[in-house]
Amino acid sequence: METRLTEMRLISFASDNTSPAHPRVMEAVRKANSGAAKPYGADPWSIEAKECIRRHFGPDSECFFVSTGTAANVLGMRTVLRPWHSVLCSAQSHAYEDECGAPEALIGAKLEIVPSTDAKLAPKDILPALSRLGTVRFSQPRLISITQPTERGILYTLEEIREIADLAHKHGLFLHMDGARLANAAVALGVDLRVASGDAGVDVLSFGGTKNGLLFGEAIVFFNPALARDLPYVCKQGMQLMAKMRYVSAQFVEYLRDGLWLENARAANAMAALLGRELKKLPQVVLSRPVETNAIFARMRPDHIEDLLKNFFFYDLGPVGEEAGEARESLHEVRFMTGYDTREEDVLRFVKAIAALK
Amino acid sequence: METRLTEMRLISFASDNTSPAHPRVMEAVRKANSGAAKPYGADPWSIEAKECIRRHFGPDSECFFVSTGTAANVLGMRTVLRPWHSVLCSAQSHAYEDECGAPEALIGAKLEIVPSTDAKLAPKDILPALSRLGTVRFSQPRLISITQPTERGILYTLEEIREIADLAHKHGLFLHMDGARLANAAVALGVDLRVASGDAGVDVLSFGGTKNGLLFGEAIVFFNPALARDLPYVCKQGMQLMAKMRYVSAQFVEYLRDGLWLENARAANAMAALLGRELKKLPQVVLSRPVETNAIFARMRPDHIEDLLKNFFFYDLGPVGEEAGEARESLHEVRFMTGYDTREEDVLRFVKAIAALK
Amino acid sequence: METRLTEMRLISFASDNTSPAHPRVMEAVRKANSGAAKPYGADPWSIEAKECIRRHFGPDSECFFVSTGTAANVLGMRTVLRPWHSVLCSAQSHAYEDECGAPEALIGAKLEIVPSTDAKLAPKDILPALSRLGTVRFSQPRLISITQPTERGILYTLEEIREIADLAHKHGLFLHMDGARLANAAVALGVDLRVASGDAGVDVLSFGGTKNGLLFGEAIVFFNPALARDLPYVCKQGMQLMAKMRYVSAQFVEYLRDGLWLENARAANAMAALLGRELKKLPQVVLSRPVETNAIFARMRPDHIEDLLKNFFFYDLGPVGEEAGEARESLHEVRFMTGYDTREEDVLRFVKAIAALK
Amino acid sequence: METRLTEMRLISFASDNTSPAHPRVMEAVRKANSGAAKPYGADPWSIEAKECIRRHFGPDSECFFVSTGTAANVLGMRTVLRPWHSVLCSAQSHAYEDECGAPEALIGAKLEIVPSTDAKLAPKDILPALSRLGTVRFSQPRLISITQPTERGILYTLEEIREIADLAHKHGLFLHMDGARLANAAVALGVDLRVASGDAGVDVLSFGGTKNGLLFGEAIVFFNPALARDLPYVCKQGMQLMAKMRYVSAQFVEYLRDGLWLENARAANAMAALLGRELKKLPQVVLSRPVETNAIFARMRPDHIEDLLKNFFFYDLGPVGEEAGEARESLHEVRFMTGYDTREEDVLRFVKAIAALK
Repeated sequence: METRLTEMRLISFASDNTSPAHPRVMEAVRKANSGAAKPYGADPWSIEAKECIRRHFGPDSECFFVSTGTAANVLGMRTVLRPWHSVLCSAQSHAYEDECGAPEALIGAKLEIVPSTDAKLAPKDILPALSRLGTVRFSQPRLISITQPTERGILYTLEEIREIADLAHKHGLFLHMDGARLANAAVALGVDLRVASGDAGVDVLSFGGTKNGLLFGEAIVFFNPALARDLPYVCKQGMQLMAKMRYVSAQFVEYLRDGLWLENARAANAMAALLGRELKKLPQVVLSRPVETNAIFARMRPDHIEDLLKNFFFYDLGPVGEEAGEARESLHEVRFMTGYDTREEDVLRFVKAIAALK
Repeated sequence: METRLTEMRLISFASDNTSPAHPRVMEAVRKANSGAAKPYGADPWSIEAKECIRRHFGPDSECFFVSTGTAANVLGMRTVLRPWHSVLCSAQSHAYEDECGAPEALIGAKLEIVPSTDAKLAPKDILPALSRLGTVRFSQPRLISITQPTERGILYTLEEIREIADLAHKHGLFLHMDGARLANAAVALGVDLRVASGDAGVDVLSFGGTKNGLLFGEAIVFFNPALARDLPYVCKQGMQLMAKMRYVSAQFVEYLRDGLWLENARAANAMAALLGRELKKLPQVVLSRPVETNAIFARMRPDHIEDLLKNFFFYDLGPVGEEAGEARESLHEVRFMTGYDTREEDVLRFVKAIAALK
Repeated sequence: METRLTEMRLISFASDNTSPAHPRVMEAVRKANSGAAKPYGADPWSIEAKECIRRHFGPDSECFFVSTGTAANVLGMRTVLRPWHSVLCSAQSHAYEDECGAPEALIGAKLEIVPSTDAKLAPKDILPALSRLGTVRFSQPRLISITQPTERGILYTLEEIREIADLAHKHGLFLHMDGARLANAAVALGVDLRVASGDAGVDVLSFGGTKNGLLFGEAIVFFNPALARDLPYVCKQGMQLMAKMRYVSAQFVEYLRDGLWLENARAANAMAALLGRELKKLPQVVLSRPVETNAIFARMRPDHIEDLLKNFFFYDLGPVGEEAGEARESLHEVRFMTGYDTREEDVLRFVKAIAALK
Repeated sequence: METRLTEMRLISFASDNTSPAHPRVMEAVRKANSGAAKPYGADPWSIEAKECIRRHFGPDSECFFVSTGTAANVLGMRTVLRPWHSVLCSAQSHAYEDECGAPEALIGAKLEIVPSTDAKLAPKDILPALSRLGTVRFSQPRLISITQPTERGILYTLEEIREIADLAHKHGLFLHMDGARLANAAVALGVDLRVASGDAGVDVLSFGGTKNGLLFGEAIVFFNPALARDLPYVCKQGMQLMAKMRYVSAQFVEYLRDGLWLENARAANAMAALLGRELKKLPQVVLSRPVETNAIFARMRPDHIEDLLKNFFFYDLGPVGEEAGEARESLHEVRFMTGYDTREEDVLRFVKAIAALK
C-alpha cells in the first residue's frame, strides 16, 4: 500500500481541505506525543491552547475545540438555542446546505432562509423575518448566522457585520459567525481575529483550523462567558470531548502562538489572487464573482471542465442557474480554491492547461 | 511553554487514555501528511482502512471512523433505533453513566437499566424487560448493549455473548457491544477480533482505538450491511465526517495491518497482571474484582490513597458502597489501569510506594 | 360570565375553525358520556370509529385519532421519517409555515421548500430536489407533503396527485397529504374520501375533523399497515393517547357513519361559492385566486379592510407581495373562509357591507 | 351500534380515567358550543379559564391547557430543561414509567431514578444525585419531579414538599409536581390547590382534570411567570394548541368556578375510604399500602383475581416482588381506584363479591 499511497500526486484546486497539515503543526503534534497526560482537556497543551484563544479573541472569551466544522456550527448554536427558535441564514450557508440537516436534527430549531447575494446577508433582507417575533405559530428568530467569508468567497466589511449585529441585538437575537475560513477573511480585511469577529459584534464563532493548515480541529469561541456557561456540557454531550485532547490543543497552540494562522491564510489568499489575475486574461474562463479571499468562482464550458478534470481536482458546480441571474445555460460554474500550500508552479501549470483548452 | 510541557512526568494508572499514541501510529500519521488528498473519506488511506476493517471483521462488515467513544456508541445505536425504542444496559455502562446523557439526547431512546454484576449482564436479568414488548405505554426494547470487557474490567465469555445475542435476536432486538477495549478482551480470550464480536452474535460494535495506542479514533462496525445502510448519513449528520479523514484512517491502517492492536493490548494486559499479582501480596490493598484485562479494582484506606496521589495519577471511586455489597465503609474503591506503554519499572515503583504506606 | 359569553355574536369569515361543533357531533359526545369505559382506546366508541375509518379509507387502513392538526402532520410524518430525511413541501404549507417548527423539532428532519403555485406542487418542481438522493452532505428526501386543498384554497386533481405519488414511489419516497380540509376537496372533486387520498397514491394522510364540524379531532390514516406498525408508539410518545379516547372517537363515529362529513363540507363549499359569486360583482374586491373549495382569497384596500373588521372577523394577510407577482402594493390580500355553519344571511350581510364601502 | 354501546355496564375500579365526565362539565361544553369563537385560545372561555387558574393558583401564575397528562408533564418540563439536564424522579413515576419514553425523546434530558418508598422521594435519597452537578460527563440535575399523591396513592405532607423544594432551590434546581390527581391530594390534606402546590415550593405543576370529572384536559401551571416565558411556544410546537380551545377551557371554568373539583375529589376519596375500610375486614385481601386518597393497593390470590375480573374491571399488577420486600410470591398486587362517580352500591357489591371468593 505504501507504494500506492505515494505514487499519486493530486493537484487540487478543489478545496483548502485537500491540503495536508502544515509541517509545523505536524511537528507540534509529534512533540505532544510524549508521556502520559491527563485526559479530557486537563492536559497542559489544552490549558495553553485556551490561553492562546484568549490572547487572540479577548480575555473573557470561552472556547471548546471540536473535530469538525459541522460540530463547531451545531454545538455553538445549540448552546444558545431552544427548539422553538429559528436561525436566519443564507440558502447557501454551510449550516443550511452541507451538513445533512445536522442543525435541525440536533438542535431542533428551524433554519429560515433569508435572501442573500453571493451568500451574503443584508439587514434589509433580515428585517422581514423579525416580524415573526412574538407570534406563537412561528419559530422564534434567535440567531442570525453569517459566514465570513461567505460560501461564495465574498467578504463582509466590519461595518456590515456590525450593522447585522446591532440589528440582532436590538431584537434580542445573537449573531453567529461561521468562520471556517475566518483567517482568510482577517488577512483580506487587514485586521486581527478579534477585530474580525467579537469586536464587530459576533456572539458565537466557529473558528476554523482544518482548512488553514491543521490536521483537524475547529474552535467554538464565545465572547460573552455567561452565554457559554453550558458549552462544556453541550460539547461533551455533543460527542466532541476527546479523551486525548492534547492532539487538537497542541495544533491550536502552534497555529496561534506566533502567527502561523496569518502566514498560512496570507499564502492561500495570495495564490488565489494570482490565479484570479491570470484567469482574467483567458477567454476560456469568466470570473463570476470577485476574488476576495482564497476562492474563485468562474464559468466554463462543460467540455473544457471535463478535459481539465483529467489532470486537476476541482468542483464543477453545474449549470449556471437562476442564482447567477443569467441565461447562459451552456456554461457551468466551477470553484477553484487555494490552500496555504498551493504552489505558484501549480497555479501556473493550471493556468497553462486552461489556456490550452480549445 | 515548551519547557513547562516537558518538565512534567506523569506516572499514570488512571486510564489507558492517558497514554500517548504508539510511535508507529504517530509515524503513520506523519507519513500521511504529504500532498493533497480527496476529502471526506475519498482518500487512499480511508479506502485502505476500510479494507483492514473488512479483513478483521468480515468481508460484509461496514464501518465508519469517528473521533470519540461517545460518538461511536451514540451513532452506532442511532442508526438502528427510533425514539420510542429502549436500550437495555447496565447502570455502570459508559453509555448510561459517562456520556452526559448523549444517547438519550441524540437518539431520543430510553436507556433502561438491567441488573448487573460487575457491570455484566445475564440473560435472566434481561428477560423481564422484554415483557414490555408490545405495550404502548412502554419504550420498546430494541437493543441490548454490553461492554466488553465491562466497565469493571470483567470479561464476557464468547458463550455468554452468544446467549445474550440469541435472546436479543429471538425477540427482534439487536446486540450492541461497546468495545472501547475490545482488543484487550480479545487478547484475554485468546481469539481474534471477529470471533470476539460479530461471530459471537454482535450486530453493532464500537471498536476502540484511542485507548490502545491511537491519537484518537474509534470505528463503528456493522456486521450486517443492510442494517448499516444509513450509517454514513447518521455519521455526517452526527458531526463526525472529518474533512481530512486520512488522519484517522492512516492510524487504523497502522493499527490493524500487522498486529499492532494485538501487541499493544497484550502489553497492557501483561502489566495489569503483573500489578495485580504484586498487589495481592500487599496488606494495604484488597483487590475487589478479578483482574481479567487491563483494569484493576481494589479497596484502600482514604489516607493511603491521598498519600499515593501525590506521586501517581489514578482515580479514587469513593467509599465502597452498596454495589460491592459490604459494609466496610472506611475503605474507598480505586481503579488502576495500565496502557500499552506502561513500563514495568513504573509498575514496580508504584507497588513499592503502596507497600511503603503506613 | 354566562352573560358576557353569550352577548357576543361574532360573524366570522376568518376560518372554518371558528365554527362550533355540529349539533349532531355534540349530541354524540353527550351520549358517549355515560357509564365507565375502558381507557386509552379500548372503549367501544374507539373500536367503532376505527371501523368507520376502514369503511371509508379501505379495509387495510390503520388510524390514530389525535387532538390537533399539528399532531396529525407531525406524528404521521414521524412514523416514517428518520432525522436525516427531508420532507419536500411548499413554503406555504401549514407544516412548514404554521406549526412553530414542530416538524423540525420533533422529527429532526429538514423541511425543504419546493417552488409552488398557490401552494401547489408539481412534479417538475420536485424533481431537482431528488438529485440530492445518495449524497451524504444532504438530508435525504423521503417524503413529499402536499395539502389538499392547498393553503391557498386550490385543488389538486386526482391525476396530479397520482403523478406526484408515482414520482415519490419511483424514488423510494412516500406521499403525505395534509387533509385538514380533505372533506371539502372530496366534495369539490365529486369523489369519496378514499378515492381522494389512498387510491390516488397517498401513503400517509392527516384527515381533518376540527374544521368540518367536530369539537376537535384529526385522524392519522395509513393506507399500508406495514408502514403504520409503529404508529401507536409514536402517538403515545407524541403525547396524544387520550385516556378517555371515547370523546374523540364518538365524534368520528357520528362524522363518518352516515355522511355528516359530506353534508358539512358541501354546505361550507356552497357558501364560499355564493360569496365568491357575489364578490365578483363588487368593485371593492378583486378575487386573487379561483374559488374551488371553502376559501376565498381576494385583494382589498387597507382602509376598506379596517372598516369591515369592525363588524366581521377575518384575516388581513398584508400587502400583496411578490408571491402574487404584481406591483399593486396599495392593496392587501384577505382570506375569507366559510364553515359548515355559515348562514346565507351572514354571507349576504357581509356582501352588503362590502358593497357599501367607499 | 347504539345498542351495543349501551348494553354494556362496566363496573370499574381500574382507574379514575374510566369515569365519564361530570354532567356539569358536559353541560358546560354543550353551552360553549354556540356561535363562532376566535380560535387558538382567544375565545372568552379561554380568557375566563385562565382567570380561574389565577384565582386558584395565584395572580402571577401562568398556564396552558393541554389534552393529556403526558403532554402536561413533558411540556412543563421541556419549558425549563435543556437536553443536558436531568430530572430526578422515582422509578414508579408516571413520567419515567408510563409515557413511552416521551420525556427522554421530546426533551432529550435524562430521567434519573432516585430511590423511593411507595414512589415517594425523600431529600436524603435525592442528595447523592446532586453531587453530579458540575461534572461534565454527567447529565446535570435541573429538576426534581414528584407526584402528588404518588403513583402508589401516598401523600407528601406540605412540609415534605417544602423540604424537597428547598433542597432543589438551594442547588439551582426546580421542583415539578405531577398533579394529575392534585385535587385528591388537596382534599386529603385539607388545603386549597395553591397551598398544596405553589405555596409549598412547586415551580411547575401538571394540574389534572381528566381523572376528576373532565372529558379531557390538564393544565400546565407555572408559579413564576419569568420561568413560563416560552410556555406558549413550547405548547404550540408541542402540538397542543387546539384550534377550538373553548372546549377545554369551558371545562376548566366549570371545574374551578365554584368548587366542582373539590366536590368530585371528595367523593372519590370517600369511596376509596369506604372500600378500604370494608376490605380490611376480609381475609381474601391484604392492603399493601395506606389508603390516603382514591387508590387502594392490595394483595390477593391470582385465582381470586381471575374470578373477580369476570364481573369487575381493575388492574392486576402481577406477582408481589422485591419492591414490596416480601417473599409471598403466590400473591399478586392489585390496584383499586375510585372516581368521583363511584357509587356506594357498586363499592358494596364489589366487597360482597370479594367476600364470596373461596
